[in-house]
Amino acid sequence: MAKYKCISCENICEISADHWKCECGGLFDVVYDNLTFQIDTDNPSLWRYKAMLPIEHMENIVDFQEGMTPLIQRELAGKSIYIKLDFMFPTGSFKDRGAAVLVSKMKEMGIKDVVEDSSGNAGASIAGYCAAAQIKCSIYLPAATSENKIKQIAAYGAEIVKIEGSRDKTAEAVLSAAEHTYYASHSYNPLFFEGTKTLAFEIWEQLGQKAPDAVIVPCGNGTMLLGVYYGFKQLVDLGQSRKMPKIYAVQSANCAPLYHAHHNMEAGVILPTIAEGISVGTPIRREQILKAVQETAGDFIVVSDEAVKEGLQTLYQMGIYTEPTSATVIAGYRQLMEQRVFSREDICVLPLTGSGLKKG
Amino acid sequence: MAKYKCISCENICEISADHWKCECGGLFDVVYDNLTFQIDTDNPSLWRYKAMLPIEHMENIVDFQEGMTPLIQRELAGKSIYIKLDFMFPTGSFKDRGAAVLVSKMKEMGIKDVVEDSSGNAGASIAGYCAAAQIKCSIYLPAATSENKIKQIAAYGAEIVKIEGSRDKTAEAVLSAAEHTYYASHSYNPLFFEGTKTLAFEIWEQLGQKAPDAVIVPCGNGTMLLGVYYGFKQLVDLGQSRKMPKIYAVQSANCAPLYHAHHNMEAGVILPTIAEGISVGTPIRREQILKAVQETAGDFIVVSDEAVKEGLQTLYQMGIYTEPTSATVIAGYRQLMEQRVFSREDICVLPLTGSGLKKG
Repeated sequence: MAKYKCISCENICEISADHWKCECGGLFDVVYDNLTFQIDTDNPSLWRYKAMLPIEHMENIVDFQEGMTPLIQRELAGKSIYIKLDFMFPTGSFKDRGAAVLVSKMKEMGIKDVVEDSSGNAGASIAGYCAAAQIKCSIYLPAATSENKIKQIAAYGAEIVKIEGSRDKTAEAVLSAAEHTYYASHSYNPLFFEGTKTLAFEIWEQLGQKAPDAVIVPCGNGTMLLGVYYGFKQLVDLGQSRKMPKIYAVQSANCAPLYHAHHNMEAGVILPTIAEGISVGTPIRREQILKAVQETAGDFIVVSDEAVKEGLQTLYQMGIYTEPTSATVIAGYRQLMEQRVFSREDICVLPLTGSGLKKG
Repeated sequence: MAKYKCISCENICEISADHWKCECGGLFDVVYDNLTFQIDTDNPSLWRYKAMLPIEHMENIVDFQEGMTPLIQRELAGKSIYIKLDFMFPTGSFKDRGAAVLVSKMKEMGIKDVVEDSSGNAGASIAGYCAAAQIKCSIYLPAATSENKIKQIAAYGAEIVKIEGSRDKTAEAVLSAAEHTYYASHSYNPLFFEGTKTLAFEIWEQLGQKAPDAVIVPCGNGTMLLGVYYGFKQLVDLGQSRKMPKIYAVQSANCAPLYHAHHNMEAGVILPTIAEGISVGTPIRREQILKAVQETAGDFIVVSDEAVKEGLQTLYQMGIYTEPTSATVIAGYRQLMEQRVFSREDICVLPLTGSGLKKG
């Protein structure tokens, strides 16, 4: 049975439509009583892990048979690596993992109306899955969001709420709306991370039930990073893996609050970056992300926009068309190779976050 | 062992880099000696069918672990149907099936340089897989092709050759180029259809090793239609299926040469349509397409742009974001239901061809 546990006051409570964060103001994690490890190997999608997910009844699952995205082996910087094509989802990004689980649980809880704020992949995922679940949703966006992104979100029938001013103004507006409407957030709502943790399960299975030595992820709000961390941790806790992979978090040199914090450096100036998906000045789950990377003896690194562009070219030359944010992991991997962080034998996995078709 | 057989003079010859059509001018089909039915069930991609594909050596396979796209069950027009999300491929369309097999075979044949003409999905697929195979490719496009489509094709490193004038002018230019460079065509080259036939194998497997009663496909050059026909026919020939599904080919009311031919009607005027992917005035494999539909006791139908728009809205409301061409099958299915063509028990499969993100 899944429950919420506050990461601040450690209070444990039921998962319900009444709250998406603790009364004390702290964020929730999802915890399980008597979780047993079980995979429905006949199911070719991420729902093969439903025994380890917080949805109680199958009929509530909003199922596109998504997940089990390709894990392909390629040569890069003189070493064999694994690239996970985690953009091959219905809406074109890995965020569908989070939306699939969050929206299914919302359906189970009888929620009919939600708000979310995202100018990118998470907004499209929540809108798409809400359409499938017949849940009304309003996506709050900065007024300057590109037409192409709005088009996809609007197509799913979501209400678009444009907020003038900075990204912070949008955050304020949605938090105010979330006082009376359920907040389907990809950073606050812990159910979203229950979805992204399936990425770890898939990598582990695809490597022959083995954790890799390292996973290199783009990091803004930590949606993928915390998913990977929770997933592999659960595999260790359940006796399926003896080790955690080292988690390497790649931030943009133009927006690197977690990199600075991890290395005890002064906070830098926040500038625009082509790695839009990780352009997050104040990550909601800051402490959790820092702790996850420290615990796995991983690291935070920064990459320049120039290196991201080079990474993107490398992917294109492999026949892989992604959004720039995905290419941060290629740039990050190259940097780590130059620093001789990996041995030839180390198994490194690089997940790619979003389709290049999203760029418009 | 796979060979070419001319559909005009019936001559049989080796598959080689020297020819992509017969000396007599006729088009080739691929035929097999001693084909045995074999599925590598451990492989989660379309390469599970490699025993029934014309590639001899595994190391030549350009493999993204693509295929086995979701087949989801939904309710539509008062009946349960199966929707195949066949756009969930690396480049965003089902054409990757064809490119995967054709480009792999080109690699096996040692081909280093190819030409192709497509302003849409096939161009992106050929360009993407050629990048992965390190084969140089030139994609011929009408000069009026939208920037968004060119962007994806160019990203993969393909040379873009813009041809002024009508789509026919582009066809002339590429045929002239194909006199001295290998033609990686999605309509002339039979190896492309060997890839699209895997769609039939997957549907058959996903329905529990059973052919459906009907498959409804968009039809322009017949890339998907002939793939479906060849695939199911092979299953019948190999004793795996007792029946062929009826194939329903959906054309746009604005561009319906095959519909007119099938129904012995006068050829109509060709007008632009939002179903761009099937806007083909002179289908290369006309006779084969007509024969395939007749043989399965299927039919040709036409749908208006209005009905396609409605179909697109229906998909969006299901949380499925596709290009307009995909929505022709929704419009077509609705029309067939109105005509009471299907009983409640009939199993109908509707494959969707391309991601909505392709629209730009």
